[in-house]
Amino acid sequence: MQDVPLRVALIGMGTVGTGVARILTDQAERIARRAGRPIEIRRVVVQHVEKSRSVALPNGLITDDLEAVYADKDIDIVLHLVGGLEPARTIMLRLLESGKDVVTANKALLCEHGDEVFRRARELGRTVAYEAAVAGGIPIIAAIGQSMAANQITSIQAIINGTSNFILTEMHEKARPYADVLAEAQRLGYAEADPTMDVDGTDAAQKLVLLSQLAFGTKVPVTAFQRTGIDKLELPDLRNATEFGYRVKLLATARLIQGQLEMHVQPTLVKANQPLAKTSGAFNMVELTGDAVGRLWYSGAGAGEMPTASAVVADLIDMAVGRAQLTFSRLDIWREHAPLPLLPATEVRRRFYLRFNVEDRPHVLADIADILGRHNISIASVIQKEAESAAIPGGPVTVPLVIMTHESTEGAMRDADAELERLKSIRPPRVRIPVAS
Amino acid sequence: MQDVPLRVALIGMGTVGTGVARILTDQAERIARRAGRPIEIRRVVVQHVEKSRSVALPNGLITDDLEAVYADKDIDIVLHLVGGLEPARTIMLRLLESGKDVVTANKALLCEHGDEVFRRARELGRTVAYEAAVAGGIPIIAAIGQSMAANQITSIQAIINGTSNFILTEMHEKARPYADVLAEAQRLGYAEADPTMDVDGTDAAQKLVLLSQLAFGTKVPVTAFQRTGIDKLELPDLRNATEFGYRVKLLATARLIQGQLEMHVQPTLVKANQPLAKTSGAFNMVELTGDAVGRLWYSGAGAGEMPTASAVVADLIDMAVGRAQLTFSRLDIWREHAPLPLLPATEVRRRFYLRFNVEDRPHVLADIADILGRHNISIASVIQKEAESAAIPGGPVTVPLVIMTHESTEGAMRDADAELERLKSIRPPRVRIPVAS
Repeated sequence: MQDVPLRVALIGMGTVGTGVARILTDQAERIARRAGRPIEIRRVVVQHVEKSRSVALPNGLITDDLEAVYADKDIDIVLHLVGGLEPARTIMLRLLESGKDVVTANKALLCEHGDEVFRRARELGRTVAYEAAVAGGIPIIAAIGQSMAANQITSIQAIINGTSNFILTEMHEKARPYADVLAEAQRLGYAEADPTMDVDGTDAAQKLVLLSQLAFGTKVPVTAFQRTGIDKLELPDLRNATEFGYRVKLLATARLIQGQLEMHVQPTLVKANQPLAKTSGAFNMVELTGDAVGRLWYSGAGAGEMPTASAVVADLIDMAVGRAQLTFSRLDIWREHAPLPLLPATEVRRRFYLRFNVEDRPHVLADIADILGRHNISIASVIQKEAESAAIPGGPVTVPLVIMTHESTEGAMRDADAELERLKSIRPPRVRIPVAS
Repeated sequence: MQDVPLRVALIGMGTVGTGVARILTDQAERIARRAGRPIEIRRVVVQHVEKSRSVALPNGLITDDLEAVYADKDIDIVLHLVGGLEPARTIMLRLLESGKDVVTANKALLCEHGDEVFRRARELGRTVAYEAAVAGGIPIIAAIGQSMAANQITSIQAIINGTSNFILTEMHEKARPYADVLAEAQRLGYAEADPTMDVDGTDAAQKLVLLSQLAFGTKVPVTAFQRTGIDKLELPDLRNATEFGYRVKLLATARLIQGQLEMHVQPTLVKANQPLAKTSGAFNMVELTGDAVGRLWYSGAGAGEMPTASAVVADLIDMAVGRAQLTFSRLDIWREHAPLPLLPATEVRRRFYLRFNVEDRPHVLADIADILGRHNISIASVIQKEAESAAIPGGPVTVPLVIMTHESTEGAMRDADAELERLKSIRPPRVRIPVAS
């Protein structure tokens, strides 16, 4: 063990920063042993110096002076625990330009400006480590970047938004509607005051972009692929899925289909006996398929103070040992050959779950089957329950009709949908959810 | 990328060696890109040079001359894919002494002679990598040695023998007895011709020793802790476990209990809603608990040609990049402080599942409850079914009695068992299975 400490600065004392400070102060001896030298926190940069903190830091460390960090030649590594795009991006670039290696947990920044950040780091001979940016405490960046190095990864299917998975689990298990469960998740702290990015699929899509870049050497903008959240999901569809032997999950998918990259984030029916379907509550799970190893599953807490801090400190130890620098230089984000083309959304092939609200009269099912058939979509199974009574007294009596199709393309399905839209015997809502293959 | 190839030798062309040769020849371009330089196979050492092989190697590579490998100064790394203890141990030591870094998949060797191998490697400034020795394609050595470096691991609970898990899954799902399923597993290649080491818990115990050494810095001999296999399990107990909401799994456990190390490999009742209980077929799953990250689950194929080869080649790439050398020098196998004491088996605290075959007459349950009570073992639940008829015409009518206890020590349970043994109203078989906590 060396005596010379490794000198670090922390920028940001939000949830993750607090957890990191806690590990580095409470477990200093353990971390020093594993890093091969003591870790010394030189500065902790925050916006509001006067705010009280739940972790005790030595006096005089806390400052709001970022410039002092850039200028301090004794600081080797900076833990960049700032969210959002700006000033996070500017801070990141200035740190690299000041000769610091950087550990970050900011997925939005790397999703939006990762190319710039990684390129600049490489030009300057610096290292960026970002295990904590995806799936919190689950070491999925190491899994793809190192452990699966002998494989061509062929598929990533992941539950990587804990808030959505918590909400879906509660809806499923307690038969409670979306809005109710969301309100409870907010009370419990599983959902933010503004949960938009979680429930509309944006957060999962940003993480998928980072995983996909690492696995396939191809950076796809988050706006380039289909992204649907859980915010429109209704209980009857969760119930029907169960009846067919499935669970509805917010699934982030990136896979190789004959040299093209299929990507999407959508509520998806997953076979109930699959590990992904069995991942409940706020847990995350990533299923990786490699051409040698087959399928591997990684699961655990995808967020939270200590799990995410665990990933940040693992990166810090990796840097202290010198491993992170070697890893960064060999990641597939540098792939020099042409990026993989994105499979057009209309060509994505899957089965579909369809729910219609149809008038209870002859020939409705025949009309629907006819339209689907003309688009080469064949029906695998149907559930039609008996009618109860008219929604509007004297109005038409409607019944739910649920269809599982055989495999079809998204394009054929959309075309059929446009025709179904014009069928007078179908009333809203009309639901379509893809099935994982 | 460097032009100078990294020169390797393979020793052993069994299942794993064949898979490794397949990846290195079929995916040479990919592996070179990730390793930063081409990998050149210089020699492949086998016992029977003339034997035909399923993987095509360049002419003249195959030899039975081990001495040539030791003597060849151009060989940087050797893939040691030899099973058993000898000559595997001698080969390993000679390789290290000849200045080679070594990748091995031999868990028995490291379990038995790991201390000697690791110490010798360290003295000689060499590196040994052994990801493939535990859980095949699941990167569990990297998980413990690197990704969880910020944590004190507090518990390892693992299904790490695929053969046993396959057999238990089939017994459970198809209600087929052990001997039937074992025979089928042998036909399908999930079980060896001599399955003893798999089904008696030895294989799982050897793997647990390696995981535990890495996680707790303490090497425990495989003979020092309780080890029970699945070979005595009967269908009624699997059925009863299900009725109580559990599954029976061959669970390998190592955990910290107030500064002592609890270790055992035993058929164990696991709550049906736990990820470990849901791991079916030949898959492995390792559940790690860290004081920062909480629980993480790793699952995938724990054996087989390509999954294990995937782990060997990942280690080779790690060596080519220089990461493995840094990792090896920092693993917790070097822990200098005193090893943790082993928690005596009699002090292990758990709940128990008990099955008795009792005579159908008054006061039997009271007698059993009295004995348990005097050893401070309290009963949580009881299932007693109605009697059918006497096993021997005219003999006593017996009924199965199943008890789940509250938490107790193994010692108290053993003492109670000795008294129960003497109760005349209890007939064989008497079954006791611990419950995972």
